[in-house]
Amino acid sequence: MSGIGGLYAADPAALPSPEGPERFETLALGSGSVRVERIVSNGQVTPEGEWYDQDWDEWVVVLEGEARLGYEDGHETTLGRGESLFLPRGLRHRVTYTSSPCLWLAVHADSLRPPQEEGV
Amino acid sequence: MSGIGGLYAADPAALPSPEGPERFETLALGSGSVRVERIVSNGQVTPEGEWYDQDWDEWVVVLEGEARLGYEDGHETTLGRGESLFLPRGLRHRVTYTSSPCLWLAVHADSLRPPQEEGV
Repeated sequence: MSGIGGLYAADPAALPSPEGPERFETLALGSGSVRVERIVSNGQVTPEGEWYDQDWDEWVVVLEGEARLGYEDGHETTLGRGESLFLPRGLRHRVTYTSSPCLWLAVHADSLRPPQEEGV
Repeated sequence: MSGIGGLYAADPAALPSPEGPERFETLALGSGSVRVERIVSNGQVTPEGEWYDQDWDEWVVVLEGEARLGYEDGHETTLGRGESLFLPRGLRHRVTYTSSPCLWLAVHADSLRPPQEEGV
């Protein structure tokens, strides 16, 4: 049912080399900025001095493993299995640590917010 | 970082009673129809004769456990851990089985399609 052999499929032979980039797989595409993405990391981090700086919002959850994100103010956030966060558009961030492997699911969309902010 | 104590959090005491409804939790809300939802089932099925009939598209994945969906033509699809499918708008469907527990993640959005259909 899933073209990628299942959300959790992590054939060790299919893991990205720690020396190469992580693997990004689009699972679903919607209208506008909507995109559901599976990311397989294997120790990768964002290269020093580089930042993600997106024109849309993102909600990301770690499905397996652990990851750490860093921000311009020096703050870092660690995400364990099942932990998620929102990355609002324009929030420059870097991946500063990923376990081997680390499996993420990201949902990209416009105006993506926690539900408690609904109607605010 | 997640207001619900983590995607996989499934405190047995917090599982919905098999006699009551499953639990729907909105994790993220975007513009238009965009909604990311966590569903905790504990043996629930859609009541006999009732159907989900949505005006938007859905991508759903089983994170833990197993589930089965049924369609008007009598066809059924079983989803195991990590397996996902697309439910296009207007495709009437029912949940005909869930394990105890069964954890789902659903992304609702307009025009949500597998990436290979991009540009078609």
